[in-house]
Amino acid sequence: MDQPETGFRIEEDALGTRSMPDDILYGIQTARAVDNFSISGRVIADIEGFVPAIVAIKRAAARANMKTGDLELQIAEAIDSAGSEYAQTVSRQDFPVDIYHGGGGTAANMNVNEVLANRASEILTGIKGPDPVHPNTHVNMGQSTNDVIPSAMKMAIGGEIFALRSSLAILVGALREKEEAFADVVKLARTCLQDALPVTFGQQFSGYRAAFERQAQDLEALEASCLHIPLGATAVGTAFGASEAYRQFVFEELCVLTAKDYQPEENLFDALQNADHWIRVSASLKAIAVTLSKFSADLRLMSSGPRAGLGEIALPAVQPGSSIMPGKVNPVMPEMMMQVAFRVIGNDATVTRAAEGELDLNVWESIILEAVSESIRLMRRAIPLFVSGCVAGIEVNAERGLADASGSLALSTALAAIYGYPAASAVAKHAAKHGLSIHAASIACGLMTEAEAEMLFGDVAAFADPARTEQLIARFRARKNQ
Amino acid sequence: MDQPETGFRIEEDALGTRSMPDDILYGIQTARAVDNFSISGRVIADIEGFVPAIVAIKRAAARANMKTGDLELQIAEAIDSAGSEYAQTVSRQDFPVDIYHGGGGTAANMNVNEVLANRASEILTGIKGPDPVHPNTHVNMGQSTNDVIPSAMKMAIGGEIFALRSSLAILVGALREKEEAFADVVKLARTCLQDALPVTFGQQFSGYRAAFERQAQDLEALEASCLHIPLGATAVGTAFGASEAYRQFVFEELCVLTAKDYQPEENLFDALQNADHWIRVSASLKAIAVTLSKFSADLRLMSSGPRAGLGEIALPAVQPGSSIMPGKVNPVMPEMMMQVAFRVIGNDATVTRAAEGELDLNVWESIILEAVSESIRLMRRAIPLFVSGCVAGIEVNAERGLADASGSLALSTALAAIYGYPAASAVAKHAAKHGLSIHAASIACGLMTEAEAEMLFGDVAAFADPARTEQLIARFRARKNQ
Amino acid sequence: MDQPETGFRIEEDALGTRSMPDDILYGIQTARAVDNFSISGRVIADIEGFVPAIVAIKRAAARANMKTGDLELQIAEAIDSAGSEYAQTVSRQDFPVDIYHGGGGTAANMNVNEVLANRASEILTGIKGPDPVHPNTHVNMGQSTNDVIPSAMKMAIGGEIFALRSSLAILVGALREKEEAFADVVKLARTCLQDALPVTFGQQFSGYRAAFERQAQDLEALEASCLHIPLGATAVGTAFGASEAYRQFVFEELCVLTAKDYQPEENLFDALQNADHWIRVSASLKAIAVTLSKFSADLRLMSSGPRAGLGEIALPAVQPGSSIMPGKVNPVMPEMMMQVAFRVIGNDATVTRAAEGELDLNVWESIILEAVSESIRLMRRAIPLFVSGCVAGIEVNAERGLADASGSLALSTALAAIYGYPAASAVAKHAAKHGLSIHAASIACGLMTEAEAEMLFGDVAAFADPARTEQLIARFRARKNQ
Amino acid sequence: MDQPETGFRIEEDALGTRSMPDDILYGIQTARAVDNFSISGRVIADIEGFVPAIVAIKRAAARANMKTGDLELQIAEAIDSAGSEYAQTVSRQDFPVDIYHGGGGTAANMNVNEVLANRASEILTGIKGPDPVHPNTHVNMGQSTNDVIPSAMKMAIGGEIFALRSSLAILVGALREKEEAFADVVKLARTCLQDALPVTFGQQFSGYRAAFERQAQDLEALEASCLHIPLGATAVGTAFGASEAYRQFVFEELCVLTAKDYQPEENLFDALQNADHWIRVSASLKAIAVTLSKFSADLRLMSSGPRAGLGEIALPAVQPGSSIMPGKVNPVMPEMMMQVAFRVIGNDATVTRAAEGELDLNVWESIILEAVSESIRLMRRAIPLFVSGCVAGIEVNAERGLADASGSLALSTALAAIYGYPAASAVAKHAAKHGLSIHAASIACGLMTEAEAEMLFGDVAAFADPARTEQLIARFRARKNQ
Repeated sequence: MDQPETGFRIEEDALGTRSMPDDILYGIQTARAVDNFSISGRVIADIEGFVPAIVAIKRAAARANMKTGDLELQIAEAIDSAGSEYAQTVSRQDFPVDIYHGGGGTAANMNVNEVLANRASEILTGIKGPDPVHPNTHVNMGQSTNDVIPSAMKMAIGGEIFALRSSLAILVGALREKEEAFADVVKLARTCLQDALPVTFGQQFSGYRAAFERQAQDLEALEASCLHIPLGATAVGTAFGASEAYRQFVFEELCVLTAKDYQPEENLFDALQNADHWIRVSASLKAIAVTLSKFSADLRLMSSGPRAGLGEIALPAVQPGSSIMPGKVNPVMPEMMMQVAFRVIGNDATVTRAAEGELDLNVWESIILEAVSESIRLMRRAIPLFVSGCVAGIEVNAERGLADASGSLALSTALAAIYGYPAASAVAKHAAKHGLSIHAASIACGLMTEAEAEMLFGDVAAFADPARTEQLIARFRARKNQ
Repeated sequence: MDQPETGFRIEEDALGTRSMPDDILYGIQTARAVDNFSISGRVIADIEGFVPAIVAIKRAAARANMKTGDLELQIAEAIDSAGSEYAQTVSRQDFPVDIYHGGGGTAANMNVNEVLANRASEILTGIKGPDPVHPNTHVNMGQSTNDVIPSAMKMAIGGEIFALRSSLAILVGALREKEEAFADVVKLARTCLQDALPVTFGQQFSGYRAAFERQAQDLEALEASCLHIPLGATAVGTAFGASEAYRQFVFEELCVLTAKDYQPEENLFDALQNADHWIRVSASLKAIAVTLSKFSADLRLMSSGPRAGLGEIALPAVQPGSSIMPGKVNPVMPEMMMQVAFRVIGNDATVTRAAEGELDLNVWESIILEAVSESIRLMRRAIPLFVSGCVAGIEVNAERGLADASGSLALSTALAAIYGYPAASAVAKHAAKHGLSIHAASIACGLMTEAEAEMLFGDVAAFADPARTEQLIARFRARKNQ
Repeated sequence: MDQPETGFRIEEDALGTRSMPDDILYGIQTARAVDNFSISGRVIADIEGFVPAIVAIKRAAARANMKTGDLELQIAEAIDSAGSEYAQTVSRQDFPVDIYHGGGGTAANMNVNEVLANRASEILTGIKGPDPVHPNTHVNMGQSTNDVIPSAMKMAIGGEIFALRSSLAILVGALREKEEAFADVVKLARTCLQDALPVTFGQQFSGYRAAFERQAQDLEALEASCLHIPLGATAVGTAFGASEAYRQFVFEELCVLTAKDYQPEENLFDALQNADHWIRVSASLKAIAVTLSKFSADLRLMSSGPRAGLGEIALPAVQPGSSIMPGKVNPVMPEMMMQVAFRVIGNDATVTRAAEGELDLNVWESIILEAVSESIRLMRRAIPLFVSGCVAGIEVNAERGLADASGSLALSTALAAIYGYPAASAVAKHAAKHGLSIHAASIACGLMTEAEAEMLFGDVAAFADPARTEQLIARFRARKNQ
Repeated sequence: MDQPETGFRIEEDALGTRSMPDDILYGIQTARAVDNFSISGRVIADIEGFVPAIVAIKRAAARANMKTGDLELQIAEAIDSAGSEYAQTVSRQDFPVDIYHGGGGTAANMNVNEVLANRASEILTGIKGPDPVHPNTHVNMGQSTNDVIPSAMKMAIGGEIFALRSSLAILVGALREKEEAFADVVKLARTCLQDALPVTFGQQFSGYRAAFERQAQDLEALEASCLHIPLGATAVGTAFGASEAYRQFVFEELCVLTAKDYQPEENLFDALQNADHWIRVSASLKAIAVTLSKFSADLRLMSSGPRAGLGEIALPAVQPGSSIMPGKVNPVMPEMMMQVAFRVIGNDATVTRAAEGELDLNVWESIILEAVSESIRLMRRAIPLFVSGCVAGIEVNAERGLADASGSLALSTALAAIYGYPAASAVAKHAAKHGLSIHAASIACGLMTEAEAEMLFGDVAAFADPARTEQLIARFRARKNQ
């Protein structure tokens, strides 16, 4: 091997040698990866928590290998110490492997191995290089890309899910406030976009709130499922090169380092073969996204107008709505939220395809990681803005709500409950034909006296209250059966 | 081989023998397929035009093989004659292979080979069986499943696309009628569901009409692309067992039999390896479906109410809308159309996955066929019902349209064109605050005299007419610059 | 109203009247639906358990309404009695509403209401018709399409999931048998399709088994989630027309009738607004489908050949594999399974789109029902055929497995664990260059004596056993450190 | 309005005022957008060619408005001059609006309007601000977000498609080289992963080449379709505020500025209502992606091994393949390509959902832009690396190819063509049972003499050549019929 130029070191791997600038922490395999894969502009350092998770595994492994006696104290400590520098955040400069890199993540694993080996060697000798700390022999001891990368993915995504739950909690909180504030404000419910029966805005918002609360619980279960990791499986699930003692120690150390309760997957062959776990994770994200989209679409619909639409709620104005039409304001925050949802739906399609691996290992996982983490990140960041810029400021038009509720032909449902469907249907037809309210039409058709009609229809808010409706109908049925 | 029972014949294939009832036309391989694959309730006979297309190929091949001298006249004629019985429609009883059957369609091809061989033998001898006409040696001569099935798929789908174009033409015709009928009826356009500028219903419907007209043209090109078929490729694209003369004759005969201009694919290896053609076909179907869904959603939105919605159009009532709410009528026809669209979207996901084959042949094509033909069939059947039960009977509420158009704050756009955006914006704000029209607010703000305002806003229909708007703005700009 | 012809009765609804043949059990609204929606060839009777679920709700409601005193004993009993006739299976003739019918399922609900009312009237009077039992007033009492249909969907799908679990159990059982039978048969594991380390077929199959066992558990949770139904919500979640007593009784009666523990959903507004439950159900089905597809693809790969492929397992021959190539046998059962998986993936896209409803009700649910029930049905039926026609008959080629495992360059991993990665890499290079085994190359390179090499590589089965590998490596490390 | 602090200017919009640092070129609406939408890390400046396209429209509009006399010469020239500074590339600092921003792109349009207005004012007066050049009144004159953004999208994507075609051309070139280099190298074709008939590597690669050539042609048509833009439609398709003269001039100027032949869309209402164009664009990208994935999967399969796989080709080693297994090399370049394909598939799902807009405008287009441009960008960048790092260096194993081809049981197809399927099938069975070649088995079964068998099977390359196969079969048929 030739002597390197000043300021450079020579690194070697199975395919050859390469002169590396001294100030670069990563090594030859990472340099190859940068040459081979730089296509997307997204590197492993961009995935929140991912490199730190790999680093945590490396530190735990170093400590475990020291305990088993397989790694010298000095080297283990140097690796642990080097790792502590990358425990929280990492730079794109040190971890520049494109997220699209094939090979089941070998380049990502080696990037961390190389940085930690070089840094550890530097700590021990002042000089970067594979001696005395080698990226494969020492930093990767007892591990394989095949157990490290899937483990780190679950660790990273688990952390992101936790953060998404916080965002959802903000939304749930804002919705609960609206639910309470609008508890008694009547409006018209619509099914098939057609006028139906009265509800309160509070009831409607309780539905929104309950949906996101359910989904936050769902995420909690998913987060827990991310604590089961295939660490110790090494190359193909047989734990080749990972002794039983090491496997026990590495989990102990990892739990200490991360303060989380990681546990080995039940069947390590299953764990490496199959990535269907991510289908479920992605589906839960998609369910949230679709619910966000539905809620956002509802806000757009209910705030449509301001004059020639439903106009029953008003959203805060956060952005002038047109470059050409003065005075126009658009529901941009719900629209941003919907665009996020559409992306999450797309990411799910990517995850679905990539989850179908082959034989002993799913090697597509880095694109799963990119897709799942993007879905979480977008929702996590968008929701708080959506809450502060839209949900928190929603105001209802009580007047419009009451008028719409009072005018609905579906109020004839109350007549049907008392007088049967055919009689009620006749009143509804009459009301439609003559532009009357059901209240007025029930009198006009001779079904009720004015007093009766007033008792039944005088306060449509009653129809949003099961107990009051029940009482009313019971009273009328009793009267009718007299 | 044992003697068969009375009423049965013994058939044999590479895997063994089987006693077949005499009155069953298909043979042992089809019987195996029925045992192996009966899962979906959908059989190859259910795919419109598919078995007839295979049959046409078999007849063309028999004629071609006769011409080359490879098939005896008598046998060729018997096959041709047997085939003529299945030229138009086919029964589930004779062609019972489940559409899910793997193997690149071998079971489907053999089902036809067996029926034609048995029928041809019967024609010649009065007895079904592989002698004198053998399903592989004679009926399948010069062919492979690998060229027959993809060819028949294109032939069948080509025919279905033609039928879909007819359905689209019905829709385009109905929309054109509406476009003309509503040419001068003003309404308010909405962007982001917010009040924007006036248009006519005619303009809006011209957009719908133009979209489906474009898509019909797109289908025409697709239909033409389905005339290029890989017949003659045989097993792996090398035309093994298909002489040059045969390949020329078989296309000639097929064109005669079908009265269509079929031609061999340019590169037969590409043709067998890749199924991306179907991604494009499916995408065009999806584009139509999404446009149908968008149009249907618009109809639901514009007919929302009848009282507490946009209520600017009315759809025909074809079905009572509620089991509990008398008087309710739902936009069920657009909703059926949207449900169809959602299925077509799903079918596209299936096609996308299945289009990714491997090595020398895509062997997933029967599920592609099922998905693509379902997408076409659903739209083809739903559109005429949608037209007769909904589109043809759409009525507009001219009064509501004019009122909405006149009240829009976005009419301030006209002021912006004349007086600049800031001045117009101030008027719009004033109008919003005080519940005024832009007409009234422009006077109230002192921007215009009453006469000027009347000239500009007196007939909002002008704003839907580029020429009239241009004249108006020009006149005011001139006046302002005086 | 005119007198009907003989053999006909006149029925009336909000939109008009219609003469109905006496022998037809359904009524005018169903007849309209048949006219409006017959596009797909799939009717509500085709969805296993769906009409019976609606019927069960009707019977439970009749009993509950009788208990509250709102329904006369005689009428309630007639409805209950009529319902008992449709408790298990139903005919396409009586329940002919196309599954694509918009309106949130009103046509499906009314189809059942009409059949039960006609039948109940007939029971009481000998004559079909709305008197004395009216489809809306009596059969639908206390209900709305909006709570009946989503409830019946969950009931039907819950039952289908139970059946799918049985199919999965068959697969798990077959895999467990293989896992045990192949426990000690060594083979080569592959990652990125490249030769990796030895495993046993038993280990590999344990991964398959564990995956489907996990998924069966997942289904169990989903099945339980289908016990929460929105019955009692009626039209928009307010329980309009459903008294508190009724709501208690109807659940009691439904549980008695079905022997299942149904409970009301926690928030009825959420339950009607959102259909994201089905995204999760569909995703779990998709996860199963993708795992089935991956397993099937593995079987194809491992049985590829028989000569120019991996050829390490053999699948039962169930179908001759080619119309042109004698002797060819294809992996048709795994291929059928994969085609099913591709359909399930498509169905998930449909469900995702349809799950996004609007305002107070998701009205797309019937297409969700069609898609989800098809996904279940296809897998439920295909899996047992797949097991009997393929999985149960898998045989392994132990000779090939051992040869492949022994020849892998990745056996150098053992050297890396002992002598470090660089030394091992040099041996691997030497082996690759000279076509040697790692066993031979480690001697040739002078790294080991013949005896040592024999000890380490003499029985590659050791490398599939963590304990044996650990012992071996420990012994060599000890030796090296002496 | 208060006096701004030093170094700041006060900007105002319909919603209020804001103090802006003097050195920031964008204005108040962009600042609001940054506050409201910064969620993804992707800003409009990141979409290649997008901001330059909007800028080109602004310049063309300024020139056109000058020609019509609606814009003063000085202002028009200042806008044009300011625009020329952003004609090629743009900075994230000046165009920081997140790509997720709802509102149909208003924030993106206003970002450009504000930067150009501020810069133009600065050119004229030395001071940024809306005077004398106002972002709406002057820069946006004759335009609306609703025509500018869809137009700019098509312009940008058209340019990106052109670049993708170049990448595809590189791939086609490399494949053509392989096709020629491997023209005579025999190998075994496989269908259903089972041994089929001989082909040459050249034939197989001609299939790959032809597929990508087709797709490049498809892209050419798409690129042309992107020349039809809705510029001039303004807000809702009525060309409100855009005079006929302006509309003519703006296209003339745009063509001059861009040297492309842009033309107005045929129906402007259709153009604003519907985004199905993007479904087709995305589908074509998906078709390319799926074909790239299929080709990449084939490379993985054919290079599987190196010992226990198909091993019929070798890919260049560009990256060590394992952190634990020395000597392992993975097909990382095809795997990267496949990961890209999975992302493109996901992007298509996003586009499909977003293409479904409502009423008079599709307002989701910015997420369509993000998804489509990402799909193109990833493929455009990945393909050249894939070619240089993999395709160009593919080597074939001629020995293995010949051996596999010679050993295939499917060679019995030749016997079937001569002696009929049943006789051939018997030979194939015999060969399978006794581990013989078809050559040997045909002699062993007494079907052929040694000389005959040698003539037929002596050079299996003949079977990849239709003419040679035809001659052989004809000769044998003649001999048999003697």
